[in-house]
Amino acid sequence: MHIHIENDLSWPAPLQLSAERLRARLDREAGLPAGITISENGDPARMPAAIAGADVLFACGKPNLRRARSAAPDLRWVQVTTAGVEGLVADLPPDLILTNASGVHGDKGAEFILAAALMLNFGIPGFVTDKEQRAWRPRYGGTVAGKTATLLGVGAIGTAAAAALQSRGVAVIGVTRSGTSDADLDRCIAVSALDTVLPQTDILVSSLPLTPETRGLIDRRRLGLLPEGAGVVVVGRAAVFDYDALADGLADGRLGGAVLDVFPQEPLPAESRLWSCPRLIMTPHCSLDDHAVYLDGCLDIFVDNLRRFCAGEPLVNVVEAARGY
Amino acid sequence: MHIHIENDLSWPAPLQLSAERLRARLDREAGLPAGITISENGDPARMPAAIAGADVLFACGKPNLRRARSAAPDLRWVQVTTAGVEGLVADLPPDLILTNASGVHGDKGAEFILAAALMLNFGIPGFVTDKEQRAWRPRYGGTVAGKTATLLGVGAIGTAAAAALQSRGVAVIGVTRSGTSDADLDRCIAVSALDTVLPQTDILVSSLPLTPETRGLIDRRRLGLLPEGAGVVVVGRAAVFDYDALADGLADGRLGGAVLDVFPQEPLPAESRLWSCPRLIMTPHCSLDDHAVYLDGCLDIFVDNLRRFCAGEPLVNVVEAARGY
Repeated sequence: MHIHIENDLSWPAPLQLSAERLRARLDREAGLPAGITISENGDPARMPAAIAGADVLFACGKPNLRRARSAAPDLRWVQVTTAGVEGLVADLPPDLILTNASGVHGDKGAEFILAAALMLNFGIPGFVTDKEQRAWRPRYGGTVAGKTATLLGVGAIGTAAAAALQSRGVAVIGVTRSGTSDADLDRCIAVSALDTVLPQTDILVSSLPLTPETRGLIDRRRLGLLPEGAGVVVVGRAAVFDYDALADGLADGRLGGAVLDVFPQEPLPAESRLWSCPRLIMTPHCSLDDHAVYLDGCLDIFVDNLRRFCAGEPLVNVVEAARGY
Repeated sequence: MHIHIENDLSWPAPLQLSAERLRARLDREAGLPAGITISENGDPARMPAAIAGADVLFACGKPNLRRARSAAPDLRWVQVTTAGVEGLVADLPPDLILTNASGVHGDKGAEFILAAALMLNFGIPGFVTDKEQRAWRPRYGGTVAGKTATLLGVGAIGTAAAAALQSRGVAVIGVTRSGTSDADLDRCIAVSALDTVLPQTDILVSSLPLTPETRGLIDRRRLGLLPEGAGVVVVGRAAVFDYDALADGLADGRLGGAVLDVFPQEPLPAESRLWSCPRLIMTPHCSLDDHAVYLDGCLDIFVDNLRRFCAGEPLVNVVEAARGY
């Protein structure tokens, strides 16, 4: 069994995996077969030579999977360290298993969503705009208890966020493809029924991946279904939303505020209207990732899967190319 | 028994009490003596005539207590609807009981402090400044679990805030006059030991009232004892802090951020340097008050005290003039 690690050296150092670190981790694990070999590469030009002979690819980056497979015909499984895989599934050979890092963002993601919901309920994005205008405009609202949050997507992040929000008395509606969820929600509906809950949504939260079905899901019409003063939180993929309509709603004050961690283009271009958009708090795609624990979280998933792989059992976090996540 | 209500008509309508509303509330309560009469006034010029004959004053405003007592010689007890009473104690006749609204801010105050702590831990004040500068500067920190919050003052707000912070894994150090507290804290120290805990404080939170002992407590030297990147939250009285030193620490980046609800002068003058201070989120003295439930909370305290007063029992929320709260 040969495991190849492919790094993207443009990524932050804490997100790159060395053969030494993986070796040390595997040596601490019981129940793995002996004789596992590990190689490592960070030079894209050398990838085909470096990966040859690999059964398993651990990719810290966005590998070209078709190229990887042709250089390593025995390659049967690729573990990536991202949760979103929209750039990978189109090139996924049908007999190659792709597993993602879904779940690693759960703790920080849930806490960020809680923070965002509290910020929106306290009107913080509006007070930030008031400060820019040197305007003293007190608004005396209540706590977030009894408000309704609608979670678009109830994966690892949404499940953890639901618990965090419920701990403050928020009523949580989950929106999933099937209309069902294993998470502890106050209510779960199918995407097809989304329009019925938007008018009663105080805080709309998306952790949705980008798929053909989710792209543009929250368009101008659906944003218009939210009640006056509603808040929006986006930590999944930006293209699920019409950000131009969102900026219009913030600019004219119909929306109470937004907290956005993701953007149609990243880094956000200097000429984007979002930089000067009122009632908007932006974080630069860093609010789910805790670099101090991120790679260890990915290794937890990988080692669990490696044990399953060696035992011929089904892996966890398997991406389904057809659905896109 | 005669209760007089004195309103300040410049206050928001939800914070003014009508005789009708108090009557309806007293009629719902069992165990009060019959024959309680109620009067109401909102014109300061008419106060002396209106209050004459009152045993009890319910003040929605900042009454001149010396003037009130000379107009109503039988006046024995004044209930105010504020928690801070620094403007009242100097004029408090020694045989007049003053009770405040401490506790009414607990729920919202605790949630605001939780929100502020999460904002500071996620670096939101810094990202707000980055947005103003159109700068894309991701920072990948962890959750707030394991961080240390030091609470200056552990009254109703601090007690509730400690529980909210601990629910996210924050270690909470309380700072009180005596060094003891009934609240569930990880540690409680006396104000005299404050300098020993500041260097290990990630988030410094003040809900302190303004008294001769607290004025200027957090001066430039003490702010300098906080570790690089620490955050500051002030929801008590502003004059406990040196706001100029605080603004310097935010401007030079030594402090990670601040969330301030109170200011040395309110409304904050247009020329204040705080309006343009970086890494600072300001709310205009409205983050503890929930107007939808505020007056009912004050009436809960008042009715409890009225029952005690009629039974000759000690009241709750009694202000001690000597200590100033």
